[in-house]
Amino acid sequence: MPETLLSTRNLAFELYEVLDAESLTQRPRFAEHSRETFDAALTTARTIAEKYFAPHNRKADENEPRYVDGRAELIPEVKPAVDAFLEAGFLNANRDFEVGGMQLPSLVSQACFAHFQAANAGTTAYPFLTMGAANLIESFGSEEQKRLYLQPMIEGRYFGTMALTEPHAGSSLADIRTRAEPAGDGSYRLRGNKIFISGGDHELSENIVHMVLAKLPDAPPGVKGISLFIVPKYLVGPDGSRGSRNDVVLAGLFHKMGWRGTTSTALNFGDNGQCVGYLVGQPHQGLACMFQMMNEARIGVGMGAVMLGYAGYLYSLDYARQRPQGRSAENKDPQTPAIPIIEHTDVKRMLLAQKAYVEGAFDLGLYAARLFDDTHTAPDEDTRQQAQALLDLLTPIVKSWPSAYCLKANELAIQILGGHGYTREYPVEQYYRDNRLNPIHEGTEGIQSLDLLGRKLAQNGGAGLKHLMRLIAVTGERASHHPNLDPLRQPLEQLVNRLQGVTLALLGDLAQGKVAGALANSALYLKVFGHCVIGWRWLEQAIHAELGLLQRAAADRDFYLGKLQAARYFLTCEIPGCHADLALLEARDDTSLNMQQEWF
Amino acid sequence: MPETLLSTRNLAFELYEVLDAESLTQRPRFAEHSRETFDAALTTARTIAEKYFAPHNRKADENEPRYVDGRAELIPEVKPAVDAFLEAGFLNANRDFEVGGMQLPSLVSQACFAHFQAANAGTTAYPFLTMGAANLIESFGSEEQKRLYLQPMIEGRYFGTMALTEPHAGSSLADIRTRAEPAGDGSYRLRGNKIFISGGDHELSENIVHMVLAKLPDAPPGVKGISLFIVPKYLVGPDGSRGSRNDVVLAGLFHKMGWRGTTSTALNFGDNGQCVGYLVGQPHQGLACMFQMMNEARIGVGMGAVMLGYAGYLYSLDYARQRPQGRSAENKDPQTPAIPIIEHTDVKRMLLAQKAYVEGAFDLGLYAARLFDDTHTAPDEDTRQQAQALLDLLTPIVKSWPSAYCLKANELAIQILGGHGYTREYPVEQYYRDNRLNPIHEGTEGIQSLDLLGRKLAQNGGAGLKHLMRLIAVTGERASHHPNLDPLRQPLEQLVNRLQGVTLALLGDLAQGKVAGALANSALYLKVFGHCVIGWRWLEQAIHAELGLLQRAAADRDFYLGKLQAARYFLTCEIPGCHADLALLEARDDTSLNMQQEWF
Repeated sequence: MPETLLSTRNLAFELYEVLDAESLTQRPRFAEHSRETFDAALTTARTIAEKYFAPHNRKADENEPRYVDGRAELIPEVKPAVDAFLEAGFLNANRDFEVGGMQLPSLVSQACFAHFQAANAGTTAYPFLTMGAANLIESFGSEEQKRLYLQPMIEGRYFGTMALTEPHAGSSLADIRTRAEPAGDGSYRLRGNKIFISGGDHELSENIVHMVLAKLPDAPPGVKGISLFIVPKYLVGPDGSRGSRNDVVLAGLFHKMGWRGTTSTALNFGDNGQCVGYLVGQPHQGLACMFQMMNEARIGVGMGAVMLGYAGYLYSLDYARQRPQGRSAENKDPQTPAIPIIEHTDVKRMLLAQKAYVEGAFDLGLYAARLFDDTHTAPDEDTRQQAQALLDLLTPIVKSWPSAYCLKANELAIQILGGHGYTREYPVEQYYRDNRLNPIHEGTEGIQSLDLLGRKLAQNGGAGLKHLMRLIAVTGERASHHPNLDPLRQPLEQLVNRLQGVTLALLGDLAQGKVAGALANSALYLKVFGHCVIGWRWLEQAIHAELGLLQRAAADRDFYLGKLQAARYFLTCEIPGCHADLALLEARDDTSLNMQQEWF
Repeated sequence: MPETLLSTRNLAFELYEVLDAESLTQRPRFAEHSRETFDAALTTARTIAEKYFAPHNRKADENEPRYVDGRAELIPEVKPAVDAFLEAGFLNANRDFEVGGMQLPSLVSQACFAHFQAANAGTTAYPFLTMGAANLIESFGSEEQKRLYLQPMIEGRYFGTMALTEPHAGSSLADIRTRAEPAGDGSYRLRGNKIFISGGDHELSENIVHMVLAKLPDAPPGVKGISLFIVPKYLVGPDGSRGSRNDVVLAGLFHKMGWRGTTSTALNFGDNGQCVGYLVGQPHQGLACMFQMMNEARIGVGMGAVMLGYAGYLYSLDYARQRPQGRSAENKDPQTPAIPIIEHTDVKRMLLAQKAYVEGAFDLGLYAARLFDDTHTAPDEDTRQQAQALLDLLTPIVKSWPSAYCLKANELAIQILGGHGYTREYPVEQYYRDNRLNPIHEGTEGIQSLDLLGRKLAQNGGAGLKHLMRLIAVTGERASHHPNLDPLRQPLEQLVNRLQGVTLALLGDLAQGKVAGALANSALYLKVFGHCVIGWRWLEQAIHAELGLLQRAAADRDFYLGKLQAARYFLTCEIPGCHADLALLEARDDTSLNMQQEWF
């Protein structure tokens, strides 16, 4: 039976060959784990994803949440799925054993989570948001807040949301208008409107904990005046008992192109002046707090984009193997039988491109998770800091690259199925619609590009960038021991060398205050930087495939040859296309910058 | 009020500056026309499209045709819209005055039709299919068939379909199984199943005339054994009276991702052995007949893709002008007011890319329509033949390029609207879903690429290609008189020169029987060839913009500067990226060709 969520062979390759998950068990935090416990968790994830999440993916798309009497009504299949997820402990996969967690490395928990993302993006969003909200309170909340809000979230009784966006401000958080007035008893009264709040209403949990950005009366203007608040749907007594409804009203639902299983809500806070909230962390420090969560969320969004791409790739691959149609380019005899379409070169191209995008981005997502593990469990402080610097730098790529290229993979999956792919009788069109959200939420592509070029490159004195360049050089050096890999290594080195020059020049411009010109083609910069990173990860995969061919069983030969061919596709067919983009960056092309709005 | 379907200023630029529509009125066929009659027809088209087509575009998407008691039920708004279209005479825009037609040049009728395509792709499909079927009967039908089937189609009483695809064969028409047995009375009895038949059932017309591909008992194998049949939904008496239902059964409806207003049907022919059909043209010549219609249909599909892109572009442009959000890259003061997002460079980039794709493809579509006019109304036979050869060559580009790049434009339109663009409260997500069909139907991108590289290039002894290269050279020469255009002309010339070399080499390979290798990267060839053609059209537009700046009113200055900037964007930011693709073609890259299916 073909796999539908991800390739378990590829997952094992990533975890145990490329990313050496087993070495993590030598660290104190993971000492009780082993490859067996990792695999057990992964098997459980796959089983629950297949049994509870995948079966209602289409139904949730066809029956989006409905607004009924001021609340959002979901199809009944969502709750048992989420309950099974909670029951199996995945909400707390990374938490300490002592609070009931599984104490897994992020590398493994992300791999577990990936199964749910592939099976059903809409339903998976509910626990995903809850994990983000819980982590925020864990990092910045008071002991009281942890007792009253975090603990029931850990227990799966309360769910969470992130309430950032406002109708007039969109991505520009500096301009939010939601206000929080001190009530005199340590709590606050909030007033404002938020939109696009995913999971903003449902009845999957006893309570919903909204993490809300708002401004205090004495707030300085802009992003430096944003504070973070807990605003529960139901008030919570000091003993943890659930009280009456807070003044948070579900104003309406958004009707999306895809990702329909997740409610997207408009919430009104304090229409009656009675919306109670609690400040989390220091006043005016809300955005910094939220950014911690957003950085985690961005990795999660990137992996979500990967997994929609992955599910589409596997479906179209199986379809291409099963579907006979036409004959080879050389065979003009209509009396010979039709061949499976996977034998047509153009179909192989579309599958190979999907494989290159999806498996390249999958590797990067897991690599980022492993970096996250290093930030707090690496044996020495230097390694931890390096890991943090690199993770900070890579976050915009981990979020944006899969959002762009795994969406493209979904486009190719539809194309392979042809007319069938365009119908709702097959799943690939839903993956495409679902995935179209990913370049938008948790920071658009444009915002990621400005984050990378305008902020992350120079952060920590450029430590992340230097570390990345060192790692790429090391991979290149290792690849140079495999003569087969020369044609793969060289195009990457050429591109990376040129990218380094452009990067220094652009950072120089920024330092000299030439901001508009330096950032004008940030979208191109993001693309090329992302291609370099993915190209590096493919070269890394190719090295492990070469090692696998030498060391491992003949049964795996096809797998490794496929890896090498996908690496070759990405490094020799896609990477060289980036030079034209770099030339525009080198020339500080000002075509878009100088376009005048009256000219449109 | 912003325009929503297309820019009338740009349409006037195309018709009266770039493509010189007025010169057509010097030809006998169009002698009674003038710029005034052209403009009157265009105004009528816009009025009807805005009044009857656009208003139910979303409703048709939300209420797709339903299968009720063996028939397809549409929303009630479709019929008045189609009736208004018929009433205004657009179904016969090109036909002779004497049969009640408007005797318009194709250039103008395509421009009229474009308004409907932008307003409502789903409803527009019904007359579009009818025009295709009518043209088939006009070209190949007997006098009797014209009297019984064509005449009521011209009158708008009968509608038409194209019934090609079968479940097991998809694009591989060689393998169709529908059979036609002579009944002894000159008619045939058909038996077989067809899928994806657009407009295959509805009650918009008294009757539906299915143009069906089927095989006669003595048919040679493959595409040389395909014949074309008229199969009416209701039988028609010799006096033209409508008789009983023919044995054509609506087996079901397909539920599509987009383009939902058009029924996509599964039709069973002859389940009861009583399906009456009539041979059109010669036995076994059905595919040749159908190809005439398909070539027209492909231009229509290309224009449809353009117009969905155009509508999305105009919507996102207006949104970007209205929506205040954020501040310029240099302004860090949150107390200054937010600026319209059109002032952000990355938004300008996304608008400029859309403009380049949409207006480039719009020009090409109209240019193709003008070529079609030349094929039968140019004063001398040489010009006619040249026009036909060039149109044959360009057809795969006219169909496929807008399908790929105006879909990309729709993706950018969503991105400009951000979260709003992803909701069904705004129209751009529907344009994107609707447009995703275009790279699939009427010949997939893969089929277009094989048609171009494997057939069209060498057709007519390469006359089309030679003519195209001559025309591109002439445009380059004219551009060289405008020093401002040097930076635009040079990248095109470089690419075209290199493309010519690759083309000769690939044709040489094909001539030597190296078929698989030569066709292995046909997708890349299609892309680069398309970019050269669109680049040429943009250089042509740029020349006319330069002339406009010199000769015309200052009021048009912004318009021409916008044209020049979009030309610059396409020729200097997009064209150079094609060299990497040409390098792969030059190297006969075999990455996809050599990929083995076991390796996936």
